[in-house]
Amino acid sequence: MSLAVVGCSQLLTLAGPARPRVRQEMRELSIIEDGALFAAGGRILRTGTRREIEAGLPKGCEIVDAGGRVVAPGFVDAHTHPVFAGTRVDEYERRAAGATYREIAAAGGGIRATVRRTRLSSEDRLVRAAGRYAEWFLRTGTTMVEAKSGYGLTVEDELKMLRTIRRLAAETPLRWVPTFLGAHEVPDEYRQDRAGYVRLLIREMLPRVAEEKLAEYCDVFCEQGVFSVEEARAILAAAQNLGLKLRVHADQLSLSGGSRLAAELRAATADHLECAGEAEMEALAAAGVQPVLLPGSVYALGSTRYPDARAMIDRGLAVVLATDFNPGSSPTPSMPMVLSLASTHLKMTPAEAFTCATVNAAYSLGRGAEAGSLEPGKHADFVIHDCTDYREIAYFFGLEHARAVYIGGRRVELHSEGRGKWRQAD
Amino acid sequence: MSLAVVGCSQLLTLAGPARPRVRQEMRELSIIEDGALFAAGGRILRTGTRREIEAGLPKGCEIVDAGGRVVAPGFVDAHTHPVFAGTRVDEYERRAAGATYREIAAAGGGIRATVRRTRLSSEDRLVRAAGRYAEWFLRTGTTMVEAKSGYGLTVEDELKMLRTIRRLAAETPLRWVPTFLGAHEVPDEYRQDRAGYVRLLIREMLPRVAEEKLAEYCDVFCEQGVFSVEEARAILAAAQNLGLKLRVHADQLSLSGGSRLAAELRAATADHLECAGEAEMEALAAAGVQPVLLPGSVYALGSTRYPDARAMIDRGLAVVLATDFNPGSSPTPSMPMVLSLASTHLKMTPAEAFTCATVNAAYSLGRGAEAGSLEPGKHADFVIHDCTDYREIAYFFGLEHARAVYIGGRRVELHSEGRGKWRQAD
Repeated sequence: MSLAVVGCSQLLTLAGPARPRVRQEMRELSIIEDGALFAAGGRILRTGTRREIEAGLPKGCEIVDAGGRVVAPGFVDAHTHPVFAGTRVDEYERRAAGATYREIAAAGGGIRATVRRTRLSSEDRLVRAAGRYAEWFLRTGTTMVEAKSGYGLTVEDELKMLRTIRRLAAETPLRWVPTFLGAHEVPDEYRQDRAGYVRLLIREMLPRVAEEKLAEYCDVFCEQGVFSVEEARAILAAAQNLGLKLRVHADQLSLSGGSRLAAELRAATADHLECAGEAEMEALAAAGVQPVLLPGSVYALGSTRYPDARAMIDRGLAVVLATDFNPGSSPTPSMPMVLSLASTHLKMTPAEAFTCATVNAAYSLGRGAEAGSLEPGKHADFVIHDCTDYREIAYFFGLEHARAVYIGGRRVELHSEGRGKWRQAD
Repeated sequence: MSLAVVGCSQLLTLAGPARPRVRQEMRELSIIEDGALFAAGGRILRTGTRREIEAGLPKGCEIVDAGGRVVAPGFVDAHTHPVFAGTRVDEYERRAAGATYREIAAAGGGIRATVRRTRLSSEDRLVRAAGRYAEWFLRTGTTMVEAKSGYGLTVEDELKMLRTIRRLAAETPLRWVPTFLGAHEVPDEYRQDRAGYVRLLIREMLPRVAEEKLAEYCDVFCEQGVFSVEEARAILAAAQNLGLKLRVHADQLSLSGGSRLAAELRAATADHLECAGEAEMEALAAAGVQPVLLPGSVYALGSTRYPDARAMIDRGLAVVLATDFNPGSSPTPSMPMVLSLASTHLKMTPAEAFTCATVNAAYSLGRGAEAGSLEPGKHADFVIHDCTDYREIAYFFGLEHARAVYIGGRRVELHSEGRGKWRQAD
């Protein structure tokens, strides 16, 4: 089972230091023109020019001609909420007609509306619904996703969501990294007993999640009206004691202290950061926390308050970009769309954005040694994009540029016949 | 050659009055649940429920099962610039790094950079390049495009562009409506003799275009630093005398008088209108001019100054949405992306946006009797979208939702093997 890909107008290897990239490094994609790669056993063995790679191929090696197209590492989407029942297209229509996200949430809509539907849904139905989204991730060139629970908010419904993610990992070719987000919202039945819900999270949910090894990360939505810094600290500290690593929804709609908490607890990431200022960035930098920026949700909420990506890069933060795919505030699974938003509204160069969407994202998920770049020993997870210059992936927006996607050296079928079903070739 | 499509969760017919839709009419898509349609000779003969349509089908009729998906009229994209050589991805990168569109234009970049490359390109090369974009239009569900010249700016190069559009109309399944935009910019060699270029347009280009019947519409970029109201008036009046209908790039970057000129000359459309105010809208309404809104270019320029769509709708204007597809200010061919921008940033409901992107667009191109809705006698130009609720087409953004596209009752192949080649099935 060996495979060579030749005829790449640009092979983006992103080869570089074995750590997240910062500052000027983020503009260095280690591009090989007329590039080629050789993989076996699902891993990259060599990259080089076509001539270099073709010289040393074993007999029987399958050769794929990229036809003068761009070949790049699959995108790593480090923040998604892809397991949910129903959509929130009704709320979308109401927001188009002028209602705000907070008004809808205050009236019982928003996250809690999806929670009510997700609780009523079986694991099988959730797997089918998320299978449709898995196909979208693949079609837009993503090969690894972080996936959060958080629409169950009872012990059994949160476990159901995490088991759904475990099944998706077994049944789809995508690579999945599971995160427990029981602290996504205070459920309806605990609105008068917030402390009771925090106790439930700490005493019942987290021990079960850890025991069944259903999640690698724990995340909390730290925000005014959701979980306070004190509540978030208690939950995250308990998770850390059980061996989970941490991510935090921080300083999205207000400066509510999430970034500083992430720094205090040395979380892997602080996510959103639309309202984070100099002091918060300083704290994240000092603690080595990676910011995960989610411009899709800023766009989809009709806001213009984008996070200050340039200040973060200047400060040496190892920025990550992700979709925040979810049915309320960011209904896009497309990393190319996020690259477009990053260049257009975060003022990141296409190269910086690409780094944030691949190698930096992989490091934020503890997968830096395995994914995010095309270097010897890493997974052969790559995409043939239908263009000759990688910058076109962000520039021509609203399209699916991926022409072929390989995971572990095997080609994935992108256009299934049945909704939410995918196939892996041969 | 007859065809029935059954099993549509929603069949959006957009049946209604035989004129562009205004105000509350824009929210009425005439949706048939469990709908079906019957077409023959390339035209729609009937629409109805599945039971109604299945009852009267002739022998030998091909039956397509939409599988519970949405079926809708193909999008009509009423403002595009799809014929050009090269991209402007270099400028895109510079803008991401902080340069403004005007700075780049002032330094000889922008439209004039594309003009220099397009002049050097053969008609064959332009057909190949635009063929790639034609495939993108089809993949995102567009079945008719207005296409402008305007990157030639000499007699021969403008004719070359319009002949390219004529060839695209013959060689691709898309329907094309050609517009002469020789007044897109003042070319380098006339920077010191603007009056000389206006004379060239009026005395040489326009008569040739009319004589060879290469365009139906004439358009002018009326903007500070491009063509003044007086210059635009002279060009458009000359075009009108030769039998061409009019469109105007109006009040985009400044309030430069384009809308009022469009009203004065009773143009078919005034396009852009980011800076248009109450008085301009009043003038357009009084003259029956349709506004064509292009939120893709506002987005891609990193601006937040969107046109005031709500005020236009309230005033009874028959608004149109289009991509403005071009290599500088709007590199998206995707009408679903424009629908997303319309709901998110123009505060149009998904239904209003759909009306603007189909039936109202068709009327703005003089094709209201033939296209834009699925009513008896019109072209059987429709799309099967991979969702059960049409609002998802705008809501889940950054995706290609079209699963199958039919033009004149024939299915079009969406994913070609060769770059820029498309095939029509059977």
